[in-house]
Amino acid sequence: MTWLDLPESTGFGITNLPYGVFVTDSSAAPRTGVAIGDQVLDLAGLTGDPVHATGSLNAFLAQGPESWAALRSMIAAWLTDPAHRERVTPHLLPMDSVTLRMPFEVADYVDFYSSRDHAENLGRMFRPGSPALTPNWKHLPIGYHGRSGTVQVSGTPVTRPQGQYLADGTPAFGPSRRLDIEAEVGFVVGVPSVLGTPVPVHDFSSYVFGVCLVNDWSARDLQAWEYVPLGPFLGKSFLTSVSPWVVPLAALSEARVKPPVRDEPLLPYLDDSDAPWGLDLSLEVRLNGEVVSRPPFRGMYWTAAQQLAHLTVNGASLRTGDLFASGTVSGPARDERGSLIELSWDGAEPLELPDGTTRTFLQDGDEITITATAPAADGSHLSFGHVTGTIRPTALP
Amino acid sequence: MTWLDLPESTGFGITNLPYGVFVTDSSAAPRTGVAIGDQVLDLAGLTGDPVHATGSLNAFLAQGPESWAALRSMIAAWLTDPAHRERVTPHLLPMDSVTLRMPFEVADYVDFYSSRDHAENLGRMFRPGSPALTPNWKHLPIGYHGRSGTVQVSGTPVTRPQGQYLADGTPAFGPSRRLDIEAEVGFVVGVPSVLGTPVPVHDFSSYVFGVCLVNDWSARDLQAWEYVPLGPFLGKSFLTSVSPWVVPLAALSEARVKPPVRDEPLLPYLDDSDAPWGLDLSLEVRLNGEVVSRPPFRGMYWTAAQQLAHLTVNGASLRTGDLFASGTVSGPARDERGSLIELSWDGAEPLELPDGTTRTFLQDGDEITITATAPAADGSHLSFGHVTGTIRPTALP
Repeated sequence: MTWLDLPESTGFGITNLPYGVFVTDSSAAPRTGVAIGDQVLDLAGLTGDPVHATGSLNAFLAQGPESWAALRSMIAAWLTDPAHRERVTPHLLPMDSVTLRMPFEVADYVDFYSSRDHAENLGRMFRPGSPALTPNWKHLPIGYHGRSGTVQVSGTPVTRPQGQYLADGTPAFGPSRRLDIEAEVGFVVGVPSVLGTPVPVHDFSSYVFGVCLVNDWSARDLQAWEYVPLGPFLGKSFLTSVSPWVVPLAALSEARVKPPVRDEPLLPYLDDSDAPWGLDLSLEVRLNGEVVSRPPFRGMYWTAAQQLAHLTVNGASLRTGDLFASGTVSGPARDERGSLIELSWDGAEPLELPDGTTRTFLQDGDEITITATAPAADGSHLSFGHVTGTIRPTALP
Repeated sequence: MTWLDLPESTGFGITNLPYGVFVTDSSAAPRTGVAIGDQVLDLAGLTGDPVHATGSLNAFLAQGPESWAALRSMIAAWLTDPAHRERVTPHLLPMDSVTLRMPFEVADYVDFYSSRDHAENLGRMFRPGSPALTPNWKHLPIGYHGRSGTVQVSGTPVTRPQGQYLADGTPAFGPSRRLDIEAEVGFVVGVPSVLGTPVPVHDFSSYVFGVCLVNDWSARDLQAWEYVPLGPFLGKSFLTSVSPWVVPLAALSEARVKPPVRDEPLLPYLDDSDAPWGLDLSLEVRLNGEVVSRPPFRGMYWTAAQQLAHLTVNGASLRTGDLFASGTVSGPARDERGSLIELSWDGAEPLELPDGTTRTFLQDGDEITITATAPAADGSHLSFGHVTGTIRPTALP
């Protein structure tokens, strides 16, 4: 066990050790830290290794799985063997004394669509009278590229986007009237791959470093008008928020589960039956502090390992910092849906909040916070921290 | 005029001065050069300015329009005033002695769909019985994000992608059987913008540095199976090729034309009537050396200035190195179409090549080269160089 006096039932125990990037009031130089209890271990200060003083995790991520494992086991030793206590203690900073930054530079950002419940809910709302799932859905993990330049760290204000939407069948322009969230889980690539060479489904953990939370803010009115035939664009590109802590895959061994049984046979490149990467993560979505949904990740139809195999099977290469997200996490129950368009059923069934107000979509001033936990090796639960954002009015010229 | 002995009717005259990045056999350090005639002016060597020795144009692009204009006028002076001849000459290298590299680091890559003829052709083929254009097409420049990590310089081999497609109504897997090109024009962003703040249509030249050629390689069979409902993904993400020379907007003043009359009224943020950015570029597409198409750019329905205004109107920010492309350039005539799926009308009307063979889609070994010219200030034509690629068989494990 650790010589640290950790807060009871902390999600940042010795089995988690997520990585982030921080600054302090006394030092504006961003550097790498590891969360432990209610403190941050300053890796740049403790190790003197310049890779932890670059202001992003990318250089460390590029070093690959052997380096990741070596550092993780060293940090665990420093925090458990009292012999290191004196040397380590000066580099432990109170969590509330640091400002967390964007943990990695995003190379390409891909967003998938891998919750069957979510895809069926949106299919029913957007294409009534047609089958809820498109014919391709059970054969491949549908995904598309998002805007990596607007992926920002938790806490970044959400300026309500303006744009075109249909009003009574006519194109209109103004601030979005259907601003929504998408509660997702993101996967961060560490090791690049070679152009023209697919990454097999079994090599997932040789390329992917870790996991963060993602809120893929969505303007449903902009999206609905623009998305045929080339997919979502301005309805999504104004902002995507990520949590500041990246939990290493190595911390998630107890969370691995089998994904659900698939209804259609898998093509060989997607066959993950002997190395499944389902993950038993439990998400919570809070609107102005009240829990409005508890999306379960374990039921996702397509796993991150399958998503990675799919996105590279055509020879597309990976870069350090590539981020790919699961798509909205929704379970079968109403209070397990990961977006407001589902929770309010396209606005027809407003959510009732404890303060007596109702919501279909987000109002200016609303705050959304997404958290998640996973089973940890010692029987406790580890935390993914949180990703939060508050809606600001459109900045008009 | 210049003291240089330029080849007759060179497209790289004193009114062009496009920027690129090169290495030589004797120096592996990539640096910035400017094409002049059949030579390359080594800006790093001549100026000693470290901004030209970074291996990409990004640092220079980030300096903004005043720096761009100042350097352009200095280069013109160096190459016209004989007083500079002795100092400049040692930094002029034969074009065929250098290897051109990727000229800039791509931040986000967006691909538009702004040729009406192209959109109508694809609509007729993919959605027979429906109107050729989707209802949104004349109201906004439709676009989507592509994979910036697989944007590569001209000459990069094109490994035939493998993936899923429908064969007789059943999902199948293998090398693409419908590998295609898209002849496009790309615009390179220099100056970043602020998250949450749109870039007005009139500020185009304050943000965009220049223009290159783009071949957005496409696997039509992968694309057709995957693209509903979230748009193209693996059908495009395996490779996008760009020309090595970026022609500054400042070189294109003689090429500016009014775009075609629009059928629908434009929302104010897209209204470019007092500062139109239509461009009279003439493209040529060669397959194994034979011209198969001459797409005219001047008829594009949406201009790059409108595309930029649209892509930022929701508050999405720009970064130095953002690349946005026009979409396939197709004119109304059959020999003006910018893709093989149009030239062969979905394979129904094979192209007949001078060697007696026919083509619907690309075969292994085929070479595609796209070139373009524009009217120059001195009555001549300036060149965009070329973007080329040769198809290699799928790399099977």
